[in-house]
Formats: sequence, structure tokens, C-alpha cells
Amino acid sequence: MHTPPLDRLLQLRVNAERLYADFLEIQAIGLADDGSLDRVALSPQDVAARQWFASRIEEAGLTVRDDDAGNMSGVLPSRAKRARTLLVGSHLDSVANGGHYDGVIGVLAALECLRALKEADADLPVNVEAIDFTDDEGTFMGMFGCRALAGALPPDALSDSGTADYGAFRAAMIRAGMQPSDYYKARRDPANLAGYVELHIEQGPRLERGDKQIGVVLGIVGRTNYEITFNGEAGHSGTTDMYRRRDALRGAAQFIMRMHELVRERFGDGIFNCGNIQVYPGNFNVIPSRATLAVEVRHVDTDLLNSMETAVISTARECAATFRLDVIPRLIVRFPAAAMHPSVISAIKDSCEDLCFSHTDLYSYSGHSPQFLSAVTPSGMIFIPSIGGISHHRDERTDWNDVVNGANVLLNTLVRLALVHEGRGSVARRSGDLRTDHSANRHSP
Amino acid sequence: MHTPPLDRLLQLRVNAERLYADFLEIQAIGLADDGSLDRVALSPQDVAARQWFASRIEEAGLTVRDDDAGNMSGVLPSRAKRARTLLVGSHLDSVANGGHYDGVIGVLAALECLRALKEADADLPVNVEAIDFTDDEGTFMGMFGCRALAGALPPDALSDSGTADYGAFRAAMIRAGMQPSDYYKARRDPANLAGYVELHIEQGPRLERGDKQIGVVLGIVGRTNYEITFNGEAGHSGTTDMYRRRDALRGAAQFIMRMHELVRERFGDGIFNCGNIQVYPGNFNVIPSRATLAVEVRHVDTDLLNSMETAVISTARECAATFRLDVIPRLIVRFPAAAMHPSVISAIKDSCEDLCFSHTDLYSYSGHSPQFLSAVTPSGMIFIPSIGGISHHRDERTDWNDVVNGANVLLNTLVRLALVHEGRGSVARRSGDLRTDHSANRHSP
Repeated sequence: MHTPPLDRLLQLRVNAERLYADFLEIQAIGLADDGSLDRVALSPQDVAARQWFASRIEEAGLTVRDDDAGNMSGVLPSRAKRARTLLVGSHLDSVANGGHYDGVIGVLAALECLRALKEADADLPVNVEAIDFTDDEGTFMGMFGCRALAGALPPDALSDSGTADYGAFRAAMIRAGMQPSDYYKARRDPANLAGYVELHIEQGPRLERGDKQIGVVLGIVGRTNYEITFNGEAGHSGTTDMYRRRDALRGAAQFIMRMHELVRERFGDGIFNCGNIQVYPGNFNVIPSRATLAVEVRHVDTDLLNSMETAVISTARECAATFRLDVIPRLIVRFPAAAMHPSVISAIKDSCEDLCFSHTDLYSYSGHSPQFLSAVTPSGMIFIPSIGGISHHRDERTDWNDVVNGANVLLNTLVRLALVHEGRGSVARRSGDLRTDHSANRHSP
Repeated sequence: MHTPPLDRLLQLRVNAERLYADFLEIQAIGLADDGSLDRVALSPQDVAARQWFASRIEEAGLTVRDDDAGNMSGVLPSRAKRARTLLVGSHLDSVANGGHYDGVIGVLAALECLRALKEADADLPVNVEAIDFTDDEGTFMGMFGCRALAGALPPDALSDSGTADYGAFRAAMIRAGMQPSDYYKARRDPANLAGYVELHIEQGPRLERGDKQIGVVLGIVGRTNYEITFNGEAGHSGTTDMYRRRDALRGAAQFIMRMHELVRERFGDGIFNCGNIQVYPGNFNVIPSRATLAVEVRHVDTDLLNSMETAVISTARECAATFRLDVIPRLIVRFPAAAMHPSVISAIKDSCEDLCFSHTDLYSYSGHSPQFLSAVTPSGMIFIPSIGGISHHRDERTDWNDVVNGANVLLNTLVRLALVHEGRGSVARRSGDLRTDHSANRHSP
């Protein structure tokens, strides 16, 4: 078998024009009247985007692969026997009225990297697979595709329960040609995986403000969601004794105020968001008997995230007691905080140095697939700047030069990981600085 | 013309059994499965209740009258020429899933008073009219019927505007046989009115706690409703800089907390209620860009009510400024604070003394028809105890003895007002205490 010299592969660059042509084409699939992108998971638009992706994969001479969780990939197979697979990707779905860069840039860049490697006849010791994960944005179940692949979903994840109805999700899967009960078959054996890398927009302002071209993600914030219901007693707003009221909304308002203060005081970089309140019965002249809050805490440190969760519950109980309310906290989801793997972090940094891009370490405060994949294979993420930090909005934008830079860092990183992975040892930077990164040989999470 | 001696009329009593029979019959019209009353304005149930009421009026040999606002009455006409009309009534409609005493007791008692007066051949110098007001509870437009009668609605009150859609109201009026554009014709010339009295359950616990049989209403609380919208900026809850967030719900929560505290500190008996919040876009992981609050303040003192309104606006602006939000206060309705007329207050008190019922002065913290009728004719209200203060609920209840007592106070009061009204001078209490109440001759509000 023939392997091109490392130096040649490290000098590979993506075809920026071809990448841009892809971007223009897929932008039209789900383009809303207001200029935003409406391509929620398993919608006709999302299905059309997947079909487009499959056509591009075939055009490139790559192998189309899909699985029982609806994840779709293009594979550049290795000629080596029993080669492991290096995954690279993101997601083509969007939030409702989202932006045109979130997720899609990662998938298009992954495909472009495979095309560049194939054209260079880079016979790598690993399969490289560009993957689109199903419902990353959580239209039905957040990060469904990557969780299924990582084996992080229980066997009954799609079953209805007293509080969840997945009928719409199952119906959407069937419409998209999937068999809902088979999603667990998408699980991959970690022994067959060589790693995972994702290119994504930052969705925040730090790179832009710090004037850096590339963000090297050290870890992904953990996220815990609760639905918290305060129960009081309805009553005529005019005639009920002021000192005997049990106003559910008063407890809820105090909880929101206190949690914001408490997180700033005690949890440094931790994040608290109350994204919704639903009040019952909801009339001008009736004391609210019920207020249900959508509550979220995030932290990059697992222990502190757990402490925040405890604080949410205890603060809710205190506020309820103050206004003689009952409170029912209901856990919706825990997405774990995840450290990126040192081997992937090193490969990304080396690539930045090699390509002379300014870079900085940062944590991701948004959730991403490596949150789950890092539990089964060495994972990492590359961030590129978001103009004004705007995301999930039609004004979401990244300078095209930054997209191309990110795609080249992704390609360079893939080469490093592919070669290092199979123990080929030191990988030279173009700058000439030689070193061996032994930590990069570790496979465990 | 023949007028029975005053003493005989003051000794008249309602027929408690007949009143109870009516109560049992109308209770069934709109009885919900859970035992509550579902008879919202202009619903088939409300229309059926009106038909039942018209039948009872005819059975009693009284004259059925209706007007272009859907108000329906039974009239006991005076034989005197150009007699003025003494109104007595309440409403047959309920809130959704309301109780069986609110409003309906006042209408049934009014009808029973007219029957008692007719049977006694009480040829009074005024017409006495038992009236059911349309949509008192505000299914479409609170106190619509009495406002139309008092001329308190503008000519375009039923026109749609940028913020209001009265299509459903107009359709319901047409289904009930009314012509929506004609409601203004229901206005009565104040010169033809002799007064208004209403019997109603207290909807609060004060009479029960004070162990009083009758509440003499001195005034009705004024009520001002605002819809207050805080506008911030949506953003990803994880990635948006904590110090640059413009979280609309944070401003709303602070506003609710502060208003409750401020009203207790500065406005004594004033009432503040925030009955609803609607949050947009309303996701766990999106910073709320908009929070719209349903806000209400009540006070029995007009000046203090105006100060409370000012405080609502200024506090909203302060909270908005704290979190860098915009705020839009939108006035929904101002129901004026209204003092009851001294002549009617005196007549009710004299009746209580006459009938040996314990009584107390109080203000009504719920809105009632005299709020608008007091602007055009001397008005007053009689309250009877609500068990546990419960109202707008299937458990709303008043001891039947209290209902009968209230109906007898109403009858006695009507006799006093009818006779005093035409300048017949002193009205003897049964106790023998004679006095002349000159203030009772005033007609102006």
C-alpha cells in the first residue's frame, strides 16, 4: 500500500470555492421568507438536505452510509484491514428560524476534507467518516443521533411516559423512512472508533473580541434542565385576604431573582436561565394558582454543576415556603460536562501553529456532539468566530475566510490524528518543530 | 290611586320557598360535570337562563323588557304618570367554572321582591324593574350591560382595533338575537331613573369572620388593568455573555416582587395582582426576549388608585432600566372607584335595624354594576356572607338563611327608596324610631 509522505498531507488544503458552492446550495434548502433557516429535524426541509448531502457524497466517489438513528455519512475507507474509523461532522438540522452557519459548516467542511484527502490519494490507516447527526438541535430529543451512536440512550428512550409523548417524533421518523424502535442499533463499538472532531461556529463573542482565528475547545459545558412548578391557590384578586394569598407567581418571581444573584455570587462562570413561565389560570383578576418554569443551569465543572442543581432545588423550596406554596421540581435532562481529549486538543493546536492561525483555549457553553462522543472515543472541537456572537438567528454569520481557515485546521487535524493514531509517531509541523505527542495514542475517554 | 300604608309594606317579606324553588331550577342551567356553574355570557346556557327568567317574569304577571345591550328585566309598573324607575338586579352569567351564588342570587331576589310587592298590591310611585345585566363577568367585555345602560361605553366600543378583536363578541350577540351595532340604544336617560340596588354575595371572608349578617357597601373598589411588555433580546442561554444579556423575564420578575412590596408599604388596602405572564420565545435554552404581564391594581380611593397606576408605570420603567430592557405599558381598562349614595346606604341600614339583622359597613373589592350606575343614579349594594370567602369556584356557598335575610333587606330597602324617593318624607322603622333622611332625595350621583 501507498501512503503519501506526511509533509505532503499536512500541506493539503480544502477547495474553498467548492466548499462555498456547497454552502450556497444548501442555504436554499429551508430558507425562510425572513431570511432565516427553517430546517428542523426530520422536516421535509431536513430530509431534502440529507438527500442533497447523499448526492454530494456519491458525486465525490465516497461511500454513503446511514444508520438506524438516521445519522447519514460519507465514508473514505482505508485500505488497511480492520481499520478503525475517525468520525468528523456536525448536523444539518437547525432550530426554528435559525441561522445558516450553525452545524451545517461542520458537515460541509467534513465532506470537503474527505474530498481533499481522496483527491490526494491519502491512503490513511483509518476510515474517515463525515457524519450528519440526527436532531442535534432537539426538535424532538436533543443530540439524538450522537447519543444513539454513543450508546447513551436507554432502550426505551422513545417510549411515552406520564410526562413525555414521543408520538410526533416516532411519526416524523417513520415519514423520514426510519423504524423508531431500531434506533439503538445505531450504537457503534468504541473499539472500532479512532476519534471524533467537529468544526463549529463559536455562537458567542469571545474569539471576535479576543481577535483570534481559532478556538481550541478544552471542554463542553454540562447542562441540567428542570421544569419547576409552584402550586398555590387561585382566588379572586380583589376579595381574597392579602395576607392569606398563596400566589404561585410571586414564589416564581422570587426564585428567578434569587437564582440569578446566587449564581453570580457562588458559581463564577456558571449559567442560569429561566426560559419560560406558564401561569394558570392566567387572568388579570385571578391569583395565579400555578406557575411552571423552564429552568436551566450550565457549568463546565461537573461538581459545580451538581452544586448548582442542588441550589436550584433548595432555592425553589425556600421561595415556595416564603409564600406558602408547594413546589414540584421535575428533571428534564442532564447533559454531562465533558473534557475534550488531550490528543485531539494537541492535534488542533499543532495544526493552528502549522497554519499560522492565532488561537485560544476556551470552553464551549453550548452543547455539542462531543459531549456524548467523548465518553466513547477521543474527541475535540474547533471553533471559528461568530460575528457579534449572534446565533440561532437569521443574522448569525461568520466571515468566509474564517470558515475556510477552520476547514483547513480540521483537515490538518484529521491528518495528524489519522497518522498518530496508528502509532506512526512524531508528526512534523511545517514550521519544522518536531515532537512526539505520546498522549495522542490514548484511546480511552 | 291606592297606596297601602307604609307600615304594611315595611312588614312585607319575600316568599323563601318560592325563591328556593327558583334557585334549584336555575342551578341546573349550565351545571358542569364537576358541580361548578358554566354559564358564560351569551353561551347557550346563558341564553337558556334568560329564557327561563323571561318565563318566570311572565308567570308572575310582570312585564318583560329587554334592550339593545341584551339586558333583560321584569317590570312592576307604577300607576303614577311619568313614574321614574327604580332598578334592582345583578347578573345571571358566570365565569367559566364558577359558583352558583355570584350574581344569580341578586337577580332571583329582585324578581322575588317584585312578586311580593305585586301580591301586596303595593302601588308604588316608581316603576320597579328587576334586571339581568349582560356579560357582567367579562367573558367578552366586563360589565357590558350596565355600562351600556349607563351610557358609559363609547360608540365604537365593539369595533376591532390593532389590539382588540371583538369578532367573537359580535358573533355571540348575533347568535343571541342581538344587533351588535345597536348596543348604545340601551342607554337610559338618568332623569327617568330613581336609583339602583343590588344584593350580592360578599365573595370574601369579612362578614363571616366578623359574624355579621349584612354588609352595607360604602363604595366599590376602582380597578385599573395594564398589559405590560418587557422587551429584551433573545440569545443562546449558554453562549451569550452574562453581562450583556437583556433578559426580559428578569425585569418582569423584579417588577412583580417590587410591586407587591411597594403596595404593602405605600398603599395600605390597595391590591396588586399579576395574573399572567407570557414569555417569548419560551425555550429552556433561549434568553427570553419578551415577557408580557397581565397587571391589575385596585383601590377604593380614586386618588390612591391613580397613584398606584403611576407607581406601576414608574416601577416597570425602573426594572426595565436595570436590565437594559424596553417596556411598553398598555392600558386595558379603568373601572372607576365609586362611592355608594348616602340615601341608599341609609335605607339599607334602616332596613337592617328594622329587621334586626347585624350589619357592618364595608368596601367592595370586587367590581359590580353600581360602579357604573352610581354615575347616573343613586346606587347601593347589600352583601351577604360567603362561606369561607370562597368565590368563582364550585365551592362558593352562602347559607340559605343569609340569602333570605338579604332578600328581605333588599325588599325593605326598595320600599324605603320607592316611598322616600317621591318625597313622602319620613319612613318609620318598625322599632318606632322616626326620622327624616333629606339626603335621600338627591338624585345626582
